[in-house]
Amino acid sequence: MPGTNVTCDIAADVRLPTRYAGYSGPVVPSGGVVARILEEVYELCRSDTSGTLADYIPELAAVQPDSFGICLATADGRVYGSGDLDTAFTIQSISKPFTYALALADRGPAAVAERIDVEPSGEPFFEISLDPTTQRPRNPMINAGAIAAAALVDGADAADRFARIRRSYSRFAGRQLSMNEAVYASESRTGYRNRAIAYLLRGAGIVDGDPDEAVDRYFRQCSIDVTVRDLAVMAATLANNGTNPLTRERALSRPLVEQVLSVMTTCGMYDSAGDWVTTVGLPAKSGVGGGILAVLPGQIGIAVYSPRLDAHGSSVRGVKACRELSNRLGLHFLHVTRAAHTAIRAAYSVAEAPSRLRRDADEMEVLHEFGDLARIFELHGDLLFAGAESAVRAVEDTPGRLEALVLDLREVGDVSPVAIRMLDDLEAELAAAGCRVALVDPDAKLGHLVSSLDPKDPRGRVFIDRDSATEWCEEIILDRHRPPGQACPAALSLDEHPALADLPDDERARLAKEFETRTLARGELIVARDSPRSGLFLILDGRVRFTFTDRDNRRHRLITLTPGLSFGETSMLANVPFANDVHAETTVRLAVLSPDRFDALTAQAPEAKLALLQRLAATAYTQADAALRSVATHPSL
Amino acid sequence: MPGTNVTCDIAADVRLPTRYAGYSGPVVPSGGVVARILEEVYELCRSDTSGTLADYIPELAAVQPDSFGICLATADGRVYGSGDLDTAFTIQSISKPFTYALALADRGPAAVAERIDVEPSGEPFFEISLDPTTQRPRNPMINAGAIAAAALVDGADAADRFARIRRSYSRFAGRQLSMNEAVYASESRTGYRNRAIAYLLRGAGIVDGDPDEAVDRYFRQCSIDVTVRDLAVMAATLANNGTNPLTRERALSRPLVEQVLSVMTTCGMYDSAGDWVTTVGLPAKSGVGGGILAVLPGQIGIAVYSPRLDAHGSSVRGVKACRELSNRLGLHFLHVTRAAHTAIRAAYSVAEAPSRLRRDADEMEVLHEFGDLARIFELHGDLLFAGAESAVRAVEDTPGRLEALVLDLREVGDVSPVAIRMLDDLEAELAAAGCRVALVDPDAKLGHLVSSLDPKDPRGRVFIDRDSATEWCEEIILDRHRPPGQACPAALSLDEHPALADLPDDERARLAKEFETRTLARGELIVARDSPRSGLFLILDGRVRFTFTDRDNRRHRLITLTPGLSFGETSMLANVPFANDVHAETTVRLAVLSPDRFDALTAQAPEAKLALLQRLAATAYTQADAALRSVATHPSL
Repeated sequence: MPGTNVTCDIAADVRLPTRYAGYSGPVVPSGGVVARILEEVYELCRSDTSGTLADYIPELAAVQPDSFGICLATADGRVYGSGDLDTAFTIQSISKPFTYALALADRGPAAVAERIDVEPSGEPFFEISLDPTTQRPRNPMINAGAIAAAALVDGADAADRFARIRRSYSRFAGRQLSMNEAVYASESRTGYRNRAIAYLLRGAGIVDGDPDEAVDRYFRQCSIDVTVRDLAVMAATLANNGTNPLTRERALSRPLVEQVLSVMTTCGMYDSAGDWVTTVGLPAKSGVGGGILAVLPGQIGIAVYSPRLDAHGSSVRGVKACRELSNRLGLHFLHVTRAAHTAIRAAYSVAEAPSRLRRDADEMEVLHEFGDLARIFELHGDLLFAGAESAVRAVEDTPGRLEALVLDLREVGDVSPVAIRMLDDLEAELAAAGCRVALVDPDAKLGHLVSSLDPKDPRGRVFIDRDSATEWCEEIILDRHRPPGQACPAALSLDEHPALADLPDDERARLAKEFETRTLARGELIVARDSPRSGLFLILDGRVRFTFTDRDNRRHRLITLTPGLSFGETSMLANVPFANDVHAETTVRLAVLSPDRFDALTAQAPEAKLALLQRLAATAYTQADAALRSVATHPSL
Repeated sequence: MPGTNVTCDIAADVRLPTRYAGYSGPVVPSGGVVARILEEVYELCRSDTSGTLADYIPELAAVQPDSFGICLATADGRVYGSGDLDTAFTIQSISKPFTYALALADRGPAAVAERIDVEPSGEPFFEISLDPTTQRPRNPMINAGAIAAAALVDGADAADRFARIRRSYSRFAGRQLSMNEAVYASESRTGYRNRAIAYLLRGAGIVDGDPDEAVDRYFRQCSIDVTVRDLAVMAATLANNGTNPLTRERALSRPLVEQVLSVMTTCGMYDSAGDWVTTVGLPAKSGVGGGILAVLPGQIGIAVYSPRLDAHGSSVRGVKACRELSNRLGLHFLHVTRAAHTAIRAAYSVAEAPSRLRRDADEMEVLHEFGDLARIFELHGDLLFAGAESAVRAVEDTPGRLEALVLDLREVGDVSPVAIRMLDDLEAELAAAGCRVALVDPDAKLGHLVSSLDPKDPRGRVFIDRDSATEWCEEIILDRHRPPGQACPAALSLDEHPALADLPDDERARLAKEFETRTLARGELIVARDSPRSGLFLILDGRVRFTFTDRDNRRHRLITLTPGLSFGETSMLANVPFANDVHAETTVRLAVLSPDRFDALTAQAPEAKLALLQRLAATAYTQADAALRSVATHPSL
């Protein structure tokens, strides 16, 4: 079989970095809320001294019968533990899902399925349970299936095949695991029944090569030494899609993790699988070495070690501790949560939460009247089918017409392929109805890169922040609903600027001659942060952008100002430096009243200056109020 | 058995409202993104005409072999469908989980477990599969277990017991279901094997009463007519914790839903359970009537109807459609998501995002220096163990000391008991370390009501909004870190108010005599929204609160002002009405410059007025900038 149909996602020559040799992980030994819960479960289960040690080989009966350890590792790599965390014991049958995983990776699921079925047998682990028709072992968790899986592992020769198994387990555990020679020697010497199974499998054509080699590999894999901490990390690696959360190394591809967990669910606990699913509800595997490993997909790996076994061959305290942990921590994998389907975090219109672009009164009025035609949907959580369905439904159910839509995906976690397709379909559906879509998706979760600046692309656009997306939607609304007579905001003359426009002619003339006009190129710095008072600036044409840098050195747009607005008042009045950088966002024309002229006006024309200040202050106050209001009412706050 | 150990969560006398008679649900027949996906799966599966009709009674062979319907209902009640949605067929074995559920509700899980095990049998449904030792049927999904479950249903007599079954199913379906008399008569006439099973069960002591009554009830339940839409709603009711998402009626208690889904997982698809879990991965049940029902807990119910059956007795197209839907929609219940464990939406300090209480410069400085000792954690998603663990860890891992903490729980969904306990423990741990906790939890998700106003309670406090909680934390920081010489913000005289304090003596005196002093009681309205310009107000003592009402008629605090600040400028300068209501939050002392006096100053003392305006404008601009900055950088935006 070597060389045929090899789809290997675990490169045979990958070696763990030596820093993981002897690595003992970041267990939090005591203290803290979670550690205390573990401690309670530990104390509760410790008193149970029922059960008996496995004794079919002397090595298994030679362990400390009172040894007991519980370890829990989260899918993002935090490890909690209680009791004997560093006691080594042989992995035994807990090896089965991991060798099965390697066989799946080496041969592909279809080829493995031809040799090993996935049906629960309803029988103990030592039963041979071959399908009467196909001769396939009923599943990879009984010995027959496990030996068949060991036979399917790729490699140059027997030594290489076992080395690949050991390396694979080590990758799951995040440290170099080694084999217990004494246990292996004993197993190998006394494992008549397993040897018989291997011969039966060879006779049935399930095992192709040397049956002795296959069963020898199986004995070796069962004899690998682990600690309860290793098993918890191995479980957490399964919980984390196959990537070890401590080393960040991938141990198994994602679809195969699902396959392995499925088989553990139905077949992992042998003839008590039904009871286990009902009362514990976690894919799991136990071994006669005294270990149990259980997985809450996406969340948690659990391992328990205590060598006294029940009639099914599983650790007594292990079963009890898993049951207690599942009940107390609410880990049952069918546990239903209310909020699982809600992907909409907030939904509102641009009329309710406009962009930070300050617009003139005419435009504000258009947006006030038609802003409900452009809506913003903030999504969150994972976008699997149910989440995507709720998002699509919310958009499709929006009463009335939609002309522009912002979908903010920044807080979305995992996006499944069907969700991507559904949102693509939604975009197409909306485009056909004349609604354009702005995706806020800087990480390209939907696979679209931030698009070029072509504003005519009918598919809509991708933005890196919500404010720019909102501004883009506002432009769409303005383009469509601006009254026929009303032009785009155009250049103003100084006399037309609202700061002066409604003053008596003589006062306006008096003030106007104090201003000088200045033109700046796109991108040019107008005033730098920390500049001293630099004048009073009236915007006649173009856009002016205020930005600042936060503690984390990230640059933020504070606001963009358009013709008819002004800036520099704070600095002028309070005699303080500029708090922000001010740049020309486009070509900009400004009228500037210098500090000297401004100060001189107090004596020369106090009433004109008062009138000017009054107008500027009124605008600024109104804008400050709008800003405060958006803080106070923003649907996201 | 009647009368003993009855724990009934389904009242026998509850009748469905008549509006559900003939109720046909809100199916979305076509159009929309989700409907289109269903349509594709429908078309794909329709071409498969393999399989044969059940023919052990003539009624089952008399159906339209080409009938085919797919229906999907979300856990919040949206129904999508494709094909024959209103064709009636008999429920057959899909009745088994629902009668098992009723038996669990009537007798309690322990009493039911004494009679029916939950282990997969690995055998076809017609096998008798009694445990050789206990004589219990292996599980409630094979005929033997289902007949045992039917025998356990409570009721006054045989008619009442079946009536309770029918009512229970109807509650799941959201409409009155009825029995197909012809199918029942046929089943009853020819069901020798099932009658034999009932007698065996009676002999083994599993069925207590008349075995003929038990098997008759089983024939009747199997003969209840349903549509694929009914089955989808029944599945969605299981997905939704046992509450029908359309009628909002509870059909089953939550822990029993988990039990029923667990058994469906391991035993629902008979001898193909393992393959089903691996390739479909949804708790499910099929019936020889041609129906299949599948559940994604918390999210979705699926049903398919197509009467041609495979060798296991399950609908050929049904199995195929479930597999397609699971693959295309990513519904496998072990599907691992990346973000499942992250409960922290945002974390920041009060120094980064202060409350809306405007404080004087001294206090601002203290908060700037020590504000990192008070942190705000916004949580989201469901707080099950893994989510609570990530939240607790984030708090416990905060570098340095914590003196005050806001936990904002408003965006949290489901909170499990262990999460409540963990957060309680965390509070106790923090209290012992001198850190006080403010919960933002208006819905009492953690079970604590919004507490009294006693600010000395060492356990911390519960708030209805984050801003008040943040303000409370700021007070803690101020109390602990105010420099020894610095008093709490105290009353000012008019001369000390920053609007006048640094003016030349003569100008200050000139202005001061224009102000009048006014004292207001706590809660008193100072200026109503829409009032015309009412004066310039300087705060000398107490706190002044601005509030406004949004489109949805919710009242928001805009800001609170303290001594040394001022208000009314906008209205005075721009001659516009007040945009907000202004109330005294405490007893308040104000200095007021009336509009008349203010206007008169232009002529009488223009330079003094300019100087005053300059100071007021500077403060207002600075505050506006701070407000804008908090919008631009708020971690939640």
